[in-house]
Amino acid sequence: MTELWLVGIGTGNPDHLTLEGRAALRDAALVMVPRKGAEKSDLAELRHQILAACGSTAPVAEFDMPLRDDSLPYAERVARWHDEIAAIWAATMAAAQPRGPVALLVWGDPGLYDSTLRIADRLVPRPRLRVVPGITALQALTAAHAVPFNTVNGAVTVTTGRRLRDHGWPEGAETVAVMLDGDCSFQRLPPEGLHIWWGGFLGMPEQVLEAGPLAEAGPRIVATRAAARARHGWIMDTYLIRKGAG
Amino acid sequence: MTELWLVGIGTGNPDHLTLEGRAALRDAALVMVPRKGAEKSDLAELRHQILAACGSTAPVAEFDMPLRDDSLPYAERVARWHDEIAAIWAATMAAAQPRGPVALLVWGDPGLYDSTLRIADRLVPRPRLRVVPGITALQALTAAHAVPFNTVNGAVTVTTGRRLRDHGWPEGAETVAVMLDGDCSFQRLPPEGLHIWWGGFLGMPEQVLEAGPLAEAGPRIVATRAAARARHGWIMDTYLIRKGAG
Ligand SMILES: C[S@@+](CC[C@H](N)C(=O)[O-])C[C@H]1O[C@@H](n2cnc3c(N)ncnc32)[C@H](O)[C@@H]1O
Ligand SMILES: C[S@@+](CC[C@H](N)C(=O)[O-])C[C@H]1O[C@@H](n2cnc3c(N)ncnc32)[C@H](O)[C@@H]1O
Repeated sequence: MTELWLVGIGTGNPDHLTLEGRAALRDAALVMVPRKGAEKSDLAELRHQILAACGSTAPVAEFDMPLRDDSLPYAERVARWHDEIAAIWAATMAAAQPRGPVALLVWGDPGLYDSTLRIADRLVPRPRLRVVPGITALQALTAAHAVPFNTVNGAVTVTTGRRLRDHGWPEGAETVAVMLDGDCSFQRLPPEGLHIWWGGFLGMPEQVLEAGPLAEAGPRIVATRAAARARHGWIMDTYLIRKGAG
Repeated sequence: MTELWLVGIGTGNPDHLTLEGRAALRDAALVMVPRKGAEKSDLAELRHQILAACGSTAPVAEFDMPLRDDSLPYAERVARWHDEIAAIWAATMAAAQPRGPVALLVWGDPGLYDSTLRIADRLVPRPRLRVVPGITALQALTAAHAVPFNTVNGAVTVTTGRRLRDHGWPEGAETVAVMLDGDCSFQRLPPEGLHIWWGGFLGMPEQVLEAGPLAEAGPRIVATRAAARARHGWIMDTYLIRKGAG
């Protein structure tokens, strides 16, 4: 088993790539890329665009992502799916016989709400891992709004839409950053005294931004999100909510 | 007043710079760089190294950082200091008469525990701001350890050493990421069931890493940190602590 490099590529803007990421994609002996599916094909396309732009001449091995078995309970479904992806990676590497490190392009930063590291842990023998950090959706969000992630010396809770829905505002938090929210879960919060900065398709040509006091910006975001989603067929979005800001 | 570009440069590894950051430094009409002081001069040097490596031919205006008046109470001291920095930026720009955007190189990501955005807000007239995201110390940390920032669907509290010291483990948190800690504040936590990943000088040739169950890794980190600090005269470090991991 060779080395596996997980290269963060940022969140849709090919110029989010770091010089370290570019060098890694150039130096890899093999790059594995999921095959373009029917859905979100612009995202698969971006990976090829990044590889072409960075002057990588490494051979590219495309692989098919397995389907998730929706009849299984959630935890088992995800575990099974990760096992299958690991098996496909192993088979892809075995077929390509790379004479050096193998690179995978990972959306955003490989450490943030991403399963690549956990899938890599399933490989036997365990490869030596190298992680190249990448710009996250939260950084693309705060940069686009030119707003700080935290208040002076303040704490920030990074969480998911589901947790915000199930548990409400995290105890003691001043700022909450929310990812993986298909549901505009900010609607469940009592909006008084909260300010929101929201972004969809951050870093991409389709980027949409909204911000304001939650009471008035919330309904605007719901409408903007629905319109953008209808226009493109899908959406990725994230947001920051702060107490007493504005 | 022209445009002001705040360009995140990452945390010490010149290859943390993104392609967007590099292009911004090349396209700027003026780059403002704090003059090399007596302390931490390797950090001032890094800015010049990054500018040279990225092929920027923009004129560089050096400015002196004001001294903080330690006789003032904390909040006033910081506010006064930010006012003075803003005045120095304004004077530096007025002297250089740039015919286009002015760039500042910001450590890590300009949104994370950094005062540049707040200082820029003091400029009159307020310039148009552009923020270019950069790799943070937390990303350099999780990448170096090849560890995910969050557990599956879990929340992360990003906080400071002072808050950890004053408030203890944040209510309900599974993972805590700590910055700005001069004190190894993890020593105040009951270590049972906690795992820590620590890093100093992340991304730099001096990088040091430690990890393990807090009970046994904690004292090791205190010793490693003291030795690294004695060797270099200063240190920057950050860490992640997780419940029930390992
Ligand atoms: C599976 S997570 C991956 C996060 C990624 N590793 C990162 O560092 O940003 C996907 C979530 O990230 C956020 N996201 C990723 N890319 C985005 C983009 N371009 N615009 C808005 N949100 C994005 C959304 O909240 C989405 O639900
Ligand atoms: C004023 S904050 C700036 C953070 C920066 N904007 C970022 O995005 O990482 C400084 C704190 O960041 C952390 N830090 C910055 N650079 C670091 C490095 N190279 N290694 C370890 N910690 C670092 C330390 O916790 C330090 O106290």
